[in-house]
Amino acid sequence: MTVINKAIISENTNVSEDLITLAHRLADASGEVIRKYFRTGFHIEGKQDQSPVTIADKEAEQVIRAILAKERPGDGIHGEEFGSDAGTTGYMWVLDPIDGTKAFATGRPLFGTLIGLVHNGKAVLGVIDQPISGERWIGAAGHPTLFNGKQAKVRPCPDISNANIATTGPDMFDLEEYLRLYTYLKEETSFTIYGGDCYSYGTLASGWLDGIVEGHMKLHDYVALIPIVEGAGGIITDWQGKPLPLAPSFDAFEVLATGDKPLHERLVELLSA
Amino acid sequence: MTVINKAIISENTNVSEDLITLAHRLADASGEVIRKYFRTGFHIEGKQDQSPVTIADKEAEQVIRAILAKERPGDGIHGEEFGSDAGTTGYMWVLDPIDGTKAFATGRPLFGTLIGLVHNGKAVLGVIDQPISGERWIGAAGHPTLFNGKQAKVRPCPDISNANIATTGPDMFDLEEYLRLYTYLKEETSFTIYGGDCYSYGTLASGWLDGIVEGHMKLHDYVALIPIVEGAGGIITDWQGKPLPLAPSFDAFEVLATGDKPLHERLVELLSA
Repeated sequence: MTVINKAIISENTNVSEDLITLAHRLADASGEVIRKYFRTGFHIEGKQDQSPVTIADKEAEQVIRAILAKERPGDGIHGEEFGSDAGTTGYMWVLDPIDGTKAFATGRPLFGTLIGLVHNGKAVLGVIDQPISGERWIGAAGHPTLFNGKQAKVRPCPDISNANIATTGPDMFDLEEYLRLYTYLKEETSFTIYGGDCYSYGTLASGWLDGIVEGHMKLHDYVALIPIVEGAGGIITDWQGKPLPLAPSFDAFEVLATGDKPLHERLVELLSA
Repeated sequence: MTVINKAIISENTNVSEDLITLAHRLADASGEVIRKYFRTGFHIEGKQDQSPVTIADKEAEQVIRAILAKERPGDGIHGEEFGSDAGTTGYMWVLDPIDGTKAFATGRPLFGTLIGLVHNGKAVLGVIDQPISGERWIGAAGHPTLFNGKQAKVRPCPDISNANIATTGPDMFDLEEYLRLYTYLKEETSFTIYGGDCYSYGTLASGWLDGIVEGHMKLHDYVALIPIVEGAGGIITDWQGKPLPLAPSFDAFEVLATGDKPLHERLVELLSA
């Protein structure tokens, strides 16, 4: 009986070890490219498309696409740099080789490579890889989230006045919306920290941060985060508490993630007000 | 003749190798303490003074003070945690074991240990140590700034529209002042990145960042930064372009640092307007 149940669960929701191994391989390959360009910063006036961060972003996505073309030729791909291809298998890889381009461009090792996988409308696999520090979070449906191979778990924080919240900064919002948010967070939480990009979601999954409030997030920015946050016991939704959309699109959404459920409810209340 | 000149310079402005070796030893010792507490995050309701970051901050300062008491018994010490002691030698050590407490408290390895030395009213030695990544910048009068043992140099950026600027976020300013600053930076520069604390000054010294604009900085936040930025060819002043005060005080000041001189002038113009 147990074996049969396990097989059914495995087919329906669990991600296979083969897919997890492949996700690690994709992150290894993109990290190798990205490390070559980190801290080679210089200014090229008027040629933003030839900045080291743009070159690294494009090359890393190409390396990932080349591996997928060989190993998973029928799967769809949605990448920040080279657009969308629907595929035929019901699987879609969602790629952002350098999430946190400003961090990369200023020599801060807090950017990350995001590799996500959507299957039949569900985010089933996600990697946050930090190729400089060698830190990697991986979440996969049916498996606990791992940080460098060890289980990651969110921490409780039922009282919002103890909550440490991250947000990427006012540039992600229109100024009026930002000021409203800034005031709420300042009054209600323990403190707000800026910057961090995808790295914040890893620290939330590991129980070092309580919540993240961000605006202007696109599909390639959040798909990989979902299995990581959920597999560590956390919650990730839009600001109204609704699931984030998983269809290919370059529209932007507001994202709210917490480790604690009552904290999530309280923040939805504040953010929907 | 050369030998005599060298001896005179050495006595007046150069920092001795012994002092540099001692500075490394202080950073090694505090790093050992700090690593024990990093990512041991938990909430202690209503007991902020017993949070891991506060314990690490205090213990690290005690370790540094113990070494200085033995090796430099007459020197003054001004530390964030245990106050000020004038000393009798004309030397004053200025300590902030964890600059970037929010980063530390949320598991981000971008906080740093700041060890500065003032001699006869001049900041002559500074260390930014990142005990998790193992990165260290050291600046000393008469020596080039070193990053992990290699010379660090600022990069040119005469055109403000190419400038990448860091600031620690709106919490450092009153909101009205911040909005003025936010608007200037958004209109004039390439981009603004948030967070970073002392780590930003290291990346500026290494030529990966063009400018830093911060408010509410105290003596222990900026003394160590001065020899590092200046020894890499950069400029660090208040927002009016005046030298930062170096007398013991817990007053707060606004800090402006750039790698490029024309960029500094342009920012002083904007910030003094």
